[in-house]
Amino acid sequence: MNAKRRAAGDTVVSGSREVSPSFRTIGVDIGGTNIKIASVWNDGRVVTSRQISTDAHDGPESACHRIIEAVRDLAHDEGISSQEMRVVGMDCAGLVDPQREVVIDSPNLRAWEEYPLAARVSEALGVPVHLENDVNAMAYGEWRCGAGRGARHLVCLTLGTGVGGGLILDGRLYRGARGAAAEVGHMTIDFHGARCTCPNVGCLERHLGAAYIAERARARLAQDPRASALRQVSGEELTPETLSRAAAAGDAMAADILEETGELLGHGLVSLINVFNPERVVIGGGVAQAGEALLAPARRVVARHAMSVQRQTAEIVIAALGNDAAVVGAALLALERQDARV
Amino acid sequence: MNAKRRAAGDTVVSGSREVSPSFRTIGVDIGGTNIKIASVWNDGRVVTSRQISTDAHDGPESACHRIIEAVRDLAHDEGISSQEMRVVGMDCAGLVDPQREVVIDSPNLRAWEEYPLAARVSEALGVPVHLENDVNAMAYGEWRCGAGRGARHLVCLTLGTGVGGGLILDGRLYRGARGAAAEVGHMTIDFHGARCTCPNVGCLERHLGAAYIAERARARLAQDPRASALRQVSGEELTPETLSRAAAAGDAMAADILEETGELLGHGLVSLINVFNPERVVIGGGVAQAGEALLAPARRVVARHAMSVQRQTAEIVIAALGNDAAVVGAALLALERQDARV
Repeated sequence: MNAKRRAAGDTVVSGSREVSPSFRTIGVDIGGTNIKIASVWNDGRVVTSRQISTDAHDGPESACHRIIEAVRDLAHDEGISSQEMRVVGMDCAGLVDPQREVVIDSPNLRAWEEYPLAARVSEALGVPVHLENDVNAMAYGEWRCGAGRGARHLVCLTLGTGVGGGLILDGRLYRGARGAAAEVGHMTIDFHGARCTCPNVGCLERHLGAAYIAERARARLAQDPRASALRQVSGEELTPETLSRAAAAGDAMAADILEETGELLGHGLVSLINVFNPERVVIGGGVAQAGEALLAPARRVVARHAMSVQRQTAEIVIAALGNDAAVVGAALLALERQDARV
Repeated sequence: MNAKRRAAGDTVVSGSREVSPSFRTIGVDIGGTNIKIASVWNDGRVVTSRQISTDAHDGPESACHRIIEAVRDLAHDEGISSQEMRVVGMDCAGLVDPQREVVIDSPNLRAWEEYPLAARVSEALGVPVHLENDVNAMAYGEWRCGAGRGARHLVCLTLGTGVGGGLILDGRLYRGARGAAAEVGHMTIDFHGARCTCPNVGCLERHLGAAYIAERARARLAQDPRASALRQVSGEELTPETLSRAAAAGDAMAADILEETGELLGHGLVSLINVFNPERVVIGGGVAQAGEALLAPARRVVARHAMSVQRQTAEIVIAALGNDAAVVGAALLALERQDARV
């Protein structure tokens, strides 16, 4: 699915709405290393995007100035007036207070907590600015114009360094009482299991976070005498990507480790599918690039262990928008919020 | 909290709405053994209730006739016109199709599947009839006028023979894509665990269902040499109620088993609290009558293992409406649906 290839005049169905592309807005996706600034059609197609570095150590004030400048530059270069832009949608990692739209807890951006980023950018640009958690933005983006299109109930997982989640329930982004919902990575799948960096034990992230996949791979290499290309890989390079490449090249040990990873994912999906009865489960993030090698064993566990109606309802698919999901979601979510306020 | 003690003219806040009690409607709660028929004020207070036996083996046709008769009798005896009654709300165990309002899967009422119970009762009584799953009805009842009042995000669990759930999310009952959501009893807490009667392994119900609590108690009695009143209890009588009574009477072994049960509940709650970020978790059903002996260890596990903001947000409480929760919820939910359609 390549949204960018559609012609500018096409009418597309986003979520379950029919949307005529007629104006652009701007999304700002703040990562730990880079900040992506993109102009996005209101049907979700990305017009152009640029990156600046986050330089998190310089603090939010510096980043805030650079974001304002980058948004102005992009708008100027593309001839987007603030009237056309209407709103700017931002997202970042961490817990965002849903009322105040301020980051209140972010392990990767500690100095940014309580900093009024959205308010500052809004003042400078003269348009409303909305801030959302990055995985919520990603889930919203996939729902509106990616692998989640058309579903009314959607569970989204991102598998990377950590395991994050986003929930679209009854056609709305679900945030919970204090914006802290959807931490699907910290659902318990083995209460006898090892401690995670969250206070839980044996949670999904403790099994599927990139470092824990590598840990399991190293343990298997130590126990299993078979030959494997992974034995030539140094400790740091033993990543989910290395595993995927080795498995794709026919390495049986790598394939087994990936299969076990998929099965662990499957056990988490069983809980999610039984509890949410979603039409669609979208799996994104770097680890998901393993594709069917990961999803096939996950689906087998779901077929074996999820309840009958729930497993018949839930389609398990790989995310479609890649790294653009969050920036697109942030922009479209800002538009939705603005429309709800007007 | 005793809703029945309030005077008839009081204005009460139900959910987050202000409701003036002004009319009665009728709820019908269909259990495996008995059917409860109750007249309910629109603020949730029960006026009167009666029971008839389900006689499930006689099939739904027979029960349907007896329900119609019992509702007519109750309405007649209390002088409730069909104009005042407006709707009848029914609930039963099993999966209810949310569009057609027909039971589509019910292990305890197999012959009732696809039987148009709501439609038949509606035709006979001349008022609309709505049918809902029993645990959803219970959750809705607790939310509107029980232990869940005032919460916008509520997770409800019932601990009995099985472990059921109901979800109020963003101020609405959440049913999922095919009405099969909220099966919190079948979330995995130990994927290495034993097989449940649902196709899952190591799920919450496999640890907390009444028979599994008894199984764990018997295993402990066989291993632990301490004296215990439980040794005088025959196999069949070793129920959660017996355990609670023995623990309350000072039996250390029973107290330990109950504490372990509470801890297992806690591991399930950690997942639910991390995923839903609810203001309130309401625990009902027979096993919940153990009260604090069960909740205190559950809260300790949540305090130790749930994420910071989520555990600060979630209050864990025992259900307030007892056996009336479902019949009250069914009646009020029917009113809400009717209002939404008009």
